[in-house]
Amino acid sequence: MRRVRSIKAMQRLAKLWQRKELQVGFVPTMGYLHAGHLSLLQRARQLVGPRGKVVVSIYVNPSQFGPREDFSTYPRSLSRDLKLCRAEGADVVFTPNDQTMYPRNKTEPFSTYVVEEKLSRSMEGVSRPTHFRGVTTIVAKLLNIVQPSVAVFGAKDYQQAAIVKRMARDLNFPVKIVVAPIRRESDGLAMSSRNKYLVGNLRTQGLALWKAIRKVKAAVRSSSRSISAAALKRQVNALVEGQPAARLDYVEFFHPQTLEPVGKVVPGTHMALAVFIGKTRLIDNARL
Amino acid sequence: MRRVRSIKAMQRLAKLWQRKELQVGFVPTMGYLHAGHLSLLQRARQLVGPRGKVVVSIYVNPSQFGPREDFSTYPRSLSRDLKLCRAEGADVVFTPNDQTMYPRNKTEPFSTYVVEEKLSRSMEGVSRPTHFRGVTTIVAKLLNIVQPSVAVFGAKDYQQAAIVKRMARDLNFPVKIVVAPIRRESDGLAMSSRNKYLVGNLRTQGLALWKAIRKVKAAVRSSSRSISAAALKRQVNALVEGQPAARLDYVEFFHPQTLEPVGKVVPGTHMALAVFIGKTRLIDNARL
Repeated sequence: MRRVRSIKAMQRLAKLWQRKELQVGFVPTMGYLHAGHLSLLQRARQLVGPRGKVVVSIYVNPSQFGPREDFSTYPRSLSRDLKLCRAEGADVVFTPNDQTMYPRNKTEPFSTYVVEEKLSRSMEGVSRPTHFRGVTTIVAKLLNIVQPSVAVFGAKDYQQAAIVKRMARDLNFPVKIVVAPIRRESDGLAMSSRNKYLVGNLRTQGLALWKAIRKVKAAVRSSSRSISAAALKRQVNALVEGQPAARLDYVEFFHPQTLEPVGKVVPGTHMALAVFIGKTRLIDNARL
Repeated sequence: MRRVRSIKAMQRLAKLWQRKELQVGFVPTMGYLHAGHLSLLQRARQLVGPRGKVVVSIYVNPSQFGPREDFSTYPRSLSRDLKLCRAEGADVVFTPNDQTMYPRNKTEPFSTYVVEEKLSRSMEGVSRPTHFRGVTTIVAKLLNIVQPSVAVFGAKDYQQAAIVKRMARDLNFPVKIVVAPIRRESDGLAMSSRNKYLVGNLRTQGLALWKAIRKVKAAVRSSSRSISAAALKRQVNALVEGQPAARLDYVEFFHPQTLEPVGKVVPGTHMALAVFIGKTRLIDNARL
């Protein structure tokens, strides 16, 4: 496994692989890898085959954090991450730094962003106004640097995956975007680097998201008719607020492709929610 | 020479060329080609050599026109353009249509834009608020479709060229952006597809831009000290408004890289101006 720090070196490698007609699978991450990330690496390997190349990027992207969010305290564990990538059979780990990715020199500072304007407006886009613009910008950059044939994203960030797909289609990136299923702890908590923050009894309270999803799913599946989204939202809110340290940020019911909110929930409707457990913001989602 | 209409076919061709390690030179245009465009094709050929491939795109990009601008009446002459490209030795002419480039289907309409937020604010960005976002978006799309090693832009759109360079750097497009000099008619009028609108005595009045540039250049070059930008602006305004059908939209003096306006003009300062001649808006620029 090779570690690449510079954009130029990564692009040289990408060009070399293109000449050799090798398939390249790409997994962009912010590091602090868990089994969810590793399942994305496995999926990438599966997609490009044993002859193909798997690239993982590890970069905590400042432009997707809001000014009051946890950029500086976001968990980092590079040496452990590198070992995990090697064990999973990654070919290259790309680890750029901030000055490389967002140059700040006086005469020519970084000034270009990629913005998705429709799918980004709801849910996470309301709670984190500049988040998706940071995501689409860094993903566009990484796609141009790694030039993969396929890029794999996790379904936990469902809205993000939909936006990245839309961006790749709209800007004609020559890449296939694949979305891999959520990985969960044995009790149902969706795997996330931020679960590290859930110490003491906060860990149990973090289960509220999964409990809400299961409850709604059971209601929708057992009902012979549609259920009002407003009624389900009230139930989810009551369930979440029943936990002493939990606060519901949003819960939404929407069409899985357009992300348009629906008033009537039926099997196949998608559900997503964000919950603060103490200061830690968790998200989860599922097809009902 | 081959004409390609579909994005998929163009991307297949690009991939094939990459495997063969061929250099690809790209000239994006809105058609109605004149000698200025042809000089860009010649430059592209020079850059990629006889074995390389030269691609010209011909596409009147709706997203870079404002709602009251001349999108629907912008001059078009496809069959003539194709002949000119063939005569200049282009390998491929890419001619997509609007539904291909900006899909409008109900469930997944086009919704992603590329925005440059610093260089775009002045001059053309003030007069045409959504213009550069349209330019950066279409150029990003075309770079992903054609995947050239080098793309050639004309210096007449000086601010545009600076913004495209910045975008390519910021988003790490694996391409070199080359800016080729302005081509002028024998009397000095900068070549432009919109010159077609200059009928009767408007054609002579269109010379006001070049006359203003020459006058300012002479003043700056003959002066032993810097000259106030405000004084030069007044002179340019008087010269332009002396023509009965001419109205100065803006004139600016600025640093050639940062595009920051300067108060004191010296040799090396860049000058740009936009002038309405009747309903036709012309632009021109020069290094002083």
